[in-house]
Amino acid sequence: MSLLVVGTVAFDAIETPFGKTDKIVGGAATYIGLAASNFISDINLVSVVGDDFPEKDIQHLQSRGIRTDGLQVKDGEKSFFWSGKYHLDMNTRDTLATELNVLADFDPIIPDSYQDSNFLMLGNLTPQVQMSVLDRMNSRPKLVVMDTMNFWMDNAKEDLDKVIRKVDILTINDEEARQLADEYSLVKAANKILTMGPSYLVIKKGEHGALLFHENQVFFAPALPLEEVFDPTGAGDTFAGGFIGYLAKTRDISFDNMKRAIIYGSAMASFCVEKFGTERLQALSSEDIEERVQEFIDLVQFDIVLA
Amino acid sequence: MSLLVVGTVAFDAIETPFGKTDKIVGGAATYIGLAASNFISDINLVSVVGDDFPEKDIQHLQSRGIRTDGLQVKDGEKSFFWSGKYHLDMNTRDTLATELNVLADFDPIIPDSYQDSNFLMLGNLTPQVQMSVLDRMNSRPKLVVMDTMNFWMDNAKEDLDKVIRKVDILTINDEEARQLADEYSLVKAANKILTMGPSYLVIKKGEHGALLFHENQVFFAPALPLEEVFDPTGAGDTFAGGFIGYLAKTRDISFDNMKRAIIYGSAMASFCVEKFGTERLQALSSEDIEERVQEFIDLVQFDIVLA
Repeated sequence: MSLLVVGTVAFDAIETPFGKTDKIVGGAATYIGLAASNFISDINLVSVVGDDFPEKDIQHLQSRGIRTDGLQVKDGEKSFFWSGKYHLDMNTRDTLATELNVLADFDPIIPDSYQDSNFLMLGNLTPQVQMSVLDRMNSRPKLVVMDTMNFWMDNAKEDLDKVIRKVDILTINDEEARQLADEYSLVKAANKILTMGPSYLVIKKGEHGALLFHENQVFFAPALPLEEVFDPTGAGDTFAGGFIGYLAKTRDISFDNMKRAIIYGSAMASFCVEKFGTERLQALSSEDIEERVQEFIDLVQFDIVLA
Repeated sequence: MSLLVVGTVAFDAIETPFGKTDKIVGGAATYIGLAASNFISDINLVSVVGDDFPEKDIQHLQSRGIRTDGLQVKDGEKSFFWSGKYHLDMNTRDTLATELNVLADFDPIIPDSYQDSNFLMLGNLTPQVQMSVLDRMNSRPKLVVMDTMNFWMDNAKEDLDKVIRKVDILTINDEEARQLADEYSLVKAANKILTMGPSYLVIKKGEHGALLFHENQVFFAPALPLEEVFDPTGAGDTFAGGFIGYLAKTRDISFDNMKRAIIYGSAMASFCVEKFGTERLQALSSEDIEERVQEFIDLVQFDIVLA
């Protein structure tokens, strides 16, 4: 099953209490694509960079099974750049710089070769761009997963609502769920959001795990307690990539399989934070992943026999 | 197996965004005892109240299998009183009043009839009082569980450290674990705390669940996502009472059984928050509890077959 990913491909400059980087490759679609490439080798990337984006990094994505026919390279322009500094809690962060550059007037192209993509991941972007991608698919993919953030709830609510109405799965964090539904209880928020379009809602709670809601069912997946979080950048996108990559690999979008996909997504995210940027995602074996999933199983396993 | 519980028996006046109470019966030992009484009928209470504490409420505790030979009633004095107001998040709260009253010079009495208690629950109290109870046991109970709070870390650290050194299990929340160990990572904090005396550490994370650490093992139990939290007062103590009550009932203090005890404790806490004060704990059947435990099982259950 093939996966179309639209999102940012960018440069990040990251500072933590323990180290800092200059410009390294980042962006939601990069993390999503790299994570998913551990599960499937049929990934169609839709994005835009400037001519400052190294050819070798584009080739690297290709070497991971990520097609770049839909990756526009704008001559004379610069790639999207984000710079952030994490606090000691390695969770909250200050944005030091956001230079939209080519992202400012990104108009997504869907190459013909991408038109039969079965799964669509709408990475966090301007809702208008996410909607364009949906509109430009000739037939609706089997599964559409959407990520967004509170910035769009504050600044593009109408556009956002229109896209949300058209997707199968929405992935957001707990604060965003509360803001979107205007409810404090995550259960009430989920019930509301499940009337807005999506039939599945994933609420990402960072170090506290993730919740999956569908109809009147709920599943909770933990996050692995880690001795060290080195760089949390891209963890949420990595989760999404692992999640949708696993679904595309197993070709099963039942609730039961979504639970497994959440566990695999969480496992991928736990790798992402171990090193700066995408480094840890570059060299994972399937054995690494299976070992990590076993840790998740061990973390939550208990047996209670009820009368 | 019998359980000795030392802690406060008190009056609470609680305000939430949805309602308020006048003085109702509360206190850590009340919640612990009532929760544990769903599992065992051999509970020995050590505490102190004033003569403003109604005889009928003492009889009610007795009717639940809680012996009150160790509950001192001080003539001419008033019971401990706490008043708090919860914010909209139903988690953070302002303390409006804390009147120590009889608690100010509480000197715990251990009746002879209590001396063979197998399990000891040191509810959150002045470390000095917790230590007195330990010292006044003729033989060391089979299992000693201790709760505390950041207030004692700030105001009685030396006394606190002395008690911690002597217990088997410490239960605290995540902020307290970080403060006690002076570490941000909960894994690092747990590793440190497990050198301070306890061989098991329970980190309570409220709506985010609970972690159990022992040697190099870790278990994570979720909290049930709730549509409504009516009154969170006493939830942590209820968790502790369910936890130690289940251990005392099953007479098994292995890591595997502790995991089950965490689930039962979490189930009890999920009942506590449904109504004001101890009301929900007063009329639980074992069927209610088993049904709730089944919800926990369903919440986290997934099956992944690894190669």
